[in-house]
Amino acid sequence: MTTILRIDSSIKGEAAVSRRLTQRILDRLLEAHPDATVVSRDLAQGIRQIDGSWLGSVFTAPEQRTADQQEIARTADAVMAEVKEADILVIALPVYNFGAPAQLKSWVDHIARRGESFVYTETGPVGLLTGKRAIVAFTSDGTPLGSELDHASGWLRQVLGFVGITDVDFVAADRMVFGADEAMARAEAAVAALAA
Amino acid sequence: MTTILRIDSSIKGEAAVSRRLTQRILDRLLEAHPDATVVSRDLAQGIRQIDGSWLGSVFTAPEQRTADQQEIARTADAVMAEVKEADILVIALPVYNFGAPAQLKSWVDHIARRGESFVYTETGPVGLLTGKRAIVAFTSDGTPLGSELDHASGWLRQVLGFVGITDVDFVAADRMVFGADEAMARAEAAVAALAA
Repeated sequence: MTTILRIDSSIKGEAAVSRRLTQRILDRLLEAHPDATVVSRDLAQGIRQIDGSWLGSVFTAPEQRTADQQEIARTADAVMAEVKEADILVIALPVYNFGAPAQLKSWVDHIARRGESFVYTETGPVGLLTGKRAIVAFTSDGTPLGSELDHASGWLRQVLGFVGITDVDFVAADRMVFGADEAMARAEAAVAALAA
Repeated sequence: MTTILRIDSSIKGEAAVSRRLTQRILDRLLEAHPDATVVSRDLAQGIRQIDGSWLGSVFTAPEQRTADQQEIARTADAVMAEVKEADILVIALPVYNFGAPAQLKSWVDHIARRGESFVYTETGPVGLLTGKRAIVAFTSDGTPLGSELDHASGWLRQVLGFVGITDVDFVAADRMVFGADEAMARAEAAVAALAA
């Protein structure tokens, strides 16, 4: 049975375009996978920026962790487990100041874990999260997808590939200040064209 | 009198290479500006990821803010004021997972404030933080500065330019896993060569 992990990250509430787009993508996928299990995580509700305490917790052997460290590691392991268990990831990528939201960066920092999602080998790093697919809902006020202003999509594609997720599609409602309806129409057409 | 704003962001404590590098850059600048005022902000000690509450606070007229909103706006205004008052910014940019630390992204999200650091005009956005200089201490385990793996330096240069800071130098101790001493030596030579 297919498991779909939906990651929202917009800080602009329920009306955010990237949330509408992740919902459209989900609807499209559920047409083909009506029995799929959908797991949702809304990063705008909170995700810790990794810091010294996070590193100290995650890279301390479980039996040696303090109570605080156990708490931090519990969340970190939950975020990691969600990705491991997912077959398809639907990720919202609203562009803020030419980059991904800090919350999405924090989520990536949680899942790029040595020994969990990648390993270093003699011939270089190898991603462990293979056999998964990601569909990214890219939205922006002014930044065109893939342009030199766009420091978000290339980064996300890079880091997803690093952990083994190389089957990545982008659906874009970009440059919305130049026509939000047109941007959403383009995105909806792209969703409809997605292989589900 | 010159004011220098030092922004550290490494989550790897005092021994972090990027902190050693921001210190070297500071020392170099103080040779030429011995009377400079130095303001320091360590983002690893905490900076809020901007979220709905942050937006609600910052974009609400001061006299209409709730007590919580006033608190959020107070920090946001302090971060903004530091940058406005600085002549030179020394910014640590350690690369984590091919991008900037989430804390540094959060700091940028604090300073890219419409009406404070940029305005939109009929001919497009105009940065207001002109006449400043930034020196960025770029450090990485494996990511070469300016390479296709590097989704950090181009982003920071872009967003600094957007707010009007176009005089930006990068000093790099990059690819440290391939020789930390050599990387630091390269960086120190670059610092020495900096026009102070």
